[in-house]
Order: sequence, then structure tokens, then C-alpha cells
Amino acid sequence: MYRTSALLSLSFMIIACGSPQASNNDTSKNSETPSVNHAASSNTFITLGTRGGPVAGDRRSQPSNILLTDSGNYLIDVGDGAASQLGKAKVPLRSVDSIFISHLHFDHIGGLPAIMGLRYQINAKKPLTIYGPPGTKETVDGIFAYMAPHMRVGYAVPGAPRPPTPQETTVVVEVVPGETFEVNGMTVKAVENSHFSLPEGSEAAELNKSYAYRFDLPDRSIVYTGDTGPSEAIEELARGADLLVSEMMDVPFIVDNLRRDNAKREFPAPDKVMDGVAKHLSDHHVTAKQVGEMAARAGVKEVVVTHFAGKEDAQSLEHYKADIAKGFNGEVSIASDMEKH
Amino acid sequence: MYRTSALLSLSFMIIACGSPQASNNDTSKNSETPSVNHAASSNTFITLGTRGGPVAGDRRSQPSNILLTDSGNYLIDVGDGAASQLGKAKVPLRSVDSIFISHLHFDHIGGLPAIMGLRYQINAKKPLTIYGPPGTKETVDGIFAYMAPHMRVGYAVPGAPRPPTPQETTVVVEVVPGETFEVNGMTVKAVENSHFSLPEGSEAAELNKSYAYRFDLPDRSIVYTGDTGPSEAIEELARGADLLVSEMMDVPFIVDNLRRDNAKREFPAPDKVMDGVAKHLSDHHVTAKQVGEMAARAGVKEVVVTHFAGKEDAQSLEHYKADIAKGFNGEVSIASDMEKH
Repeated sequence: MYRTSALLSLSFMIIACGSPQASNNDTSKNSETPSVNHAASSNTFITLGTRGGPVAGDRRSQPSNILLTDSGNYLIDVGDGAASQLGKAKVPLRSVDSIFISHLHFDHIGGLPAIMGLRYQINAKKPLTIYGPPGTKETVDGIFAYMAPHMRVGYAVPGAPRPPTPQETTVVVEVVPGETFEVNGMTVKAVENSHFSLPEGSEAAELNKSYAYRFDLPDRSIVYTGDTGPSEAIEELARGADLLVSEMMDVPFIVDNLRRDNAKREFPAPDKVMDGVAKHLSDHHVTAKQVGEMAARAGVKEVVVTHFAGKEDAQSLEHYKADIAKGFNGEVSIASDMEKH
Repeated sequence: MYRTSALLSLSFMIIACGSPQASNNDTSKNSETPSVNHAASSNTFITLGTRGGPVAGDRRSQPSNILLTDSGNYLIDVGDGAASQLGKAKVPLRSVDSIFISHLHFDHIGGLPAIMGLRYQINAKKPLTIYGPPGTKETVDGIFAYMAPHMRVGYAVPGAPRPPTPQETTVVVEVVPGETFEVNGMTVKAVENSHFSLPEGSEAAELNKSYAYRFDLPDRSIVYTGDTGPSEAIEELARGADLLVSEMMDVPFIVDNLRRDNAKREFPAPDKVMDGVAKHLSDHHVTAKQVGEMAARAGVKEVVVTHFAGKEDAQSLEHYKADIAKGFNGEVSIASDMEKH
């Protein structure tokens, strides 16, 4: 009886969404993704969105990545448009097993409500596990509340069966930094990076954390820095990893822009505020040179820069790569959206 | 004192987001958008996302549009990735005055949490008014709840000033169908379309509505159907409009795909369920032929199809246009993402 009911619901919801193209995306897991650059590995890390910061630009989407493996597909941060970027990558939304959130800034979680809402709308029944810092459960509870009016009406056909509620198909795990855990045979560990400056031991520091993650697959180890300043914890976490996916910011360029923009405003901020801001950017983000130093100290094999904030022209990108390579001998690239690594 | 505090907050938040590219997008309102096709009009309707249905595809983004006018910029539906699509269109997020929501299905509101969250993160102080059907306030209250953990930490620098809360900068207006109202000198009217089938006069029908909108600007009138089946209310609303922006679905193609996909499933739905589904699609969406008939009866000058669900190849698109033109003599196009009308 339960099974029949579920089937009725499934067939109805799929039809109701009315997108035949969808079925092309939805038949297999990874077979539609093109071959990847890295050799001798059956997994693929796609930088879905590579822009640093909350202001949308015309070249890069908001931060989001998907790790495709034989045992599961994992979103790593989920900025605005993550569902659309998955579509462009031909990765079916229902194939996503878990989401790993580095921190709760909106440029990193802006796409989560859409992921959860669209999963409901296409009747995705496979449970979705959301791993994140403290506050993730409260964030997801807010999304449940946002979803309530849609869930009340469904496709507005009286008597039509409904899909399982998101409360039934969503699991939230607030990750304890430093602890190792398993996800479908993949070993995962998070550490606190240096994106937040809160007094050690304070209640604020306990409630609000920003993470880097390490993913150990049978054939490959990947470390994702999240947003961070220089961080010994990340260097330790990334020890000997195959791939370091790092944020990067051209701090002097940004500070210059900010000072110039500030001067044009009707009520410009005083210099000491701008000086404080410059210090904040230096402490909470990493320059190209610092990325190279971090990678070298960790002894990783390859660096991919994402969450990029700097000059976009080709020459500048080469300069940034050269800055990273000053301290680091391995392979270096600055990712574009939809790039496979 | 208030002013100083606000300034400190503004400068700090802008810096914290750390995206110098952003400033290029954020200096003017419409001056960066290229010239548009329609003549003798100072406003532009951009189809940011043109895909029909909740499943992401590789060619079209989720439903979203922006109407740029001399007196304000207005999002019309706000699917996943709307903020990113605005970035690609070089329309600053802070320049958006209002959002008009046709109905609360997630393919039409998946991008709203990101819009609201990113506005907070970049300290956008201009009020945002969200117009929508009953349930919009509850949806937005859920987004406030989703935003709470981020708002608690901000940029995690102790003592740093915070931007105004979204509760302070967001106004929700649940629109009464049939009533005319003014937004910055633009006359707006919503009517109930036929996307929902709920018993007339029932509590469900009062709580859940799906709208089409008409926007009357000094030099141009635009009607947006939302998701709908054939609708006399829309024909009446669109009487003599310059532009009808309509959904369109190739129902037979979709039904065939759904039947084929269903047959492949481990537990296929019985035929009578599939027959019911076919009827549902026919009632709640419009074919190309029906778009043309609706446009002709309304006497509009031009039709732009968005929320497109059908075959994507060039030949099929020409066939759909020809089907629309069977009953309608005006200009017809099937929009792509980021197209200006």
C-alpha cells in the first residue's frame, strides 16, 4: 500500500514538472560527464561556480563545486545557481547524496533553498545529508519554513498524492571540527580555518565556525579550504593531499578598488575604517603568494584556485599563477566555472 | 550618530565581501545594458532564465526575468540563479526595487533566498518590495529564519557594525487579483490564471493562487502569463498590450517522454495515472497553438515565449513559432536566456 502510494506520487510529480529535457539528465549518474584531466582516478571535481564574494559578476557564478565519485555525488558549498550549474554539468539533482557547507555566508549557501525545493518538486526520494558548521540545522529549518506554502498547494490538483516532505528526506549533520567520519566509504575531516575572528572559547566562537574539508577517496585525496586566511590547521589537514582547492584574493587590488569606490560615495568612510578593512581582508583571505606557501608547506601535489577575487584578464591570471608557483613546485591552475579537475 | 554608524557598517560590509569586480557592476543602473531590439521605448525586458519546469537543463536557466525601466528595476519571478543571471546582465542587485512572483512553485522562487541573503551581505539598504500571491509573506518569513545564523555571525569580526536586518528592508505585498496598483508610476494588475485547479470558493483556492501580471509603463504595456493553461482572464488582461510574455509547452512531446520514462521504471505507474497526468498538463499549460490563439484574441502586438518546455533543436523552434503564427499575425520569438525584448 505504501509502495503503491509512493508510485502514484512519483509518477504524478514527474509529470507535473513537465520537462521532458529533464529525463535526458536523469538517467545515469556520471556517464554523461566528459573525461577529466587527472589521470588514474575515477572521481571528478567540478568547479561549478568560481567567483569570490557575494556580488554577482558576468564571468563567474557563485561558489559551488560537485565531487562525482563511484560511491556518491557531493556538492561542496552551494551558492546561488548551484542547481542550474548542475544542469549545465549534466549531473542530475537527484544523484546528489550529500552537501558539505564550509560556512554559512550567503555566497556559500544561497543556492541551498533551491536545491531542497526543486528536490521536493521533482519528488526526489533519496535522502540528502547536509554537513555543515554549527547553525546548519537552524538554516535548514528556515528553509523548511520557506517551503511550507508550496508544499501546501503542491501541483494544486485536489486529491493528488504528495511526495515525502523535506523533513523526511533531509538529514543535517553539524560537523565537529577535527573528527573524522565516513560518507559512503569516503573519509571526511573538517578543521576550523581562519575566516572568522572570534574570541577563542567565547560563545560566539562556539556558535559560528568556518571549515575546510578533506575528502579521502580510495584513489585520491582532495582538500577544500573554504574561505580562509593563512591557516596552519589547513596545512596540517592538507598534508600530502593530491589536490588542494583553495580560495584566492588579490588583496592590494581589492583594497585599492574599495578605497577608490569609498571616496566616490556621498558619505565616505574615514581612513581608519578603511585601514581596518584592509587588515580584515589580509587576515581572512589568502593572496596568491600565500596560497603557494600553504600548498608547499602542506606538500600537496596540485593546486586549483577557486573563489577567485582579482583581476580577470589573462595576463593577470598568469601573474597570479606565477605568484603561487614562487613557493610551490606542483601543478597550478585558476579554475573557471564548469571546469573538471 | 545613526548616520555615522550606518556609514561604518556600509564600508565594512562592502570590504568584507571583497569583490572588486563587483564595483564595476554597481555604479549605474541601466547604462551598462546594451541597446535593445524594440524601438521607441526606454525600458527593457530581459529573459534571464527561460526553462520550463523544475529540472535544471544544460541550455536554459530557471525562470526569471528583469524589467528595467527609467523609474525602477523589477524582477519577475526569481528562479534558482536569478542573482547570478543579474550579474551576467550587468544589472546590480542593489538596483532591483521590487520582485513580482507569479506563484510559489520552487522553479519560480528558488532564487529568492539568495537575492535576499546577498542583499544583506552587500549591505543593500534600499527597501525591496516583494509582490506575490497569498503565502508570499509566509515564504519570506521562512527566508528570514534561514538567514538568522548568517546574521548572527556577520563577517565574524567582533564589534563590527551590522547592516539593517532584512526585516527592516523588505516589504511584502500579497496582491489581490483584479486590483490595479502603482509601483513607481508603473500601473500593475494581476489576475488569476489557470495553473491551479482548486475548487472555486474553497479554502484551498483562497490560500493558493497563481497569477499573470500586466505592467503598464508610459511607453509600453507588457503582460506576463506566469504558468498557465488557456485563460480568458489573461486574454482580458492582455487586451491590446504591446508585448505578451508567455509560457509554452509541447504537451504531446512531453507526454510521450513521460510515458517512455515511466515504462522504464522499476515500478511503472498504471496507464490511468499517466492518462490523468496528460490531462493535467493539457489543462495547466499552453501549447504553441494555444499561445497564438490567446495572443490573437487579446490583440497583442508581439509574443515572446519563455518558460519553454519542448524540443530544443532549431527546426523544432521554427515549428513552434509557425504554430503560434497560425492564429496570430504579430511578431513571435522563443526567448533564450539573457535576451533583451
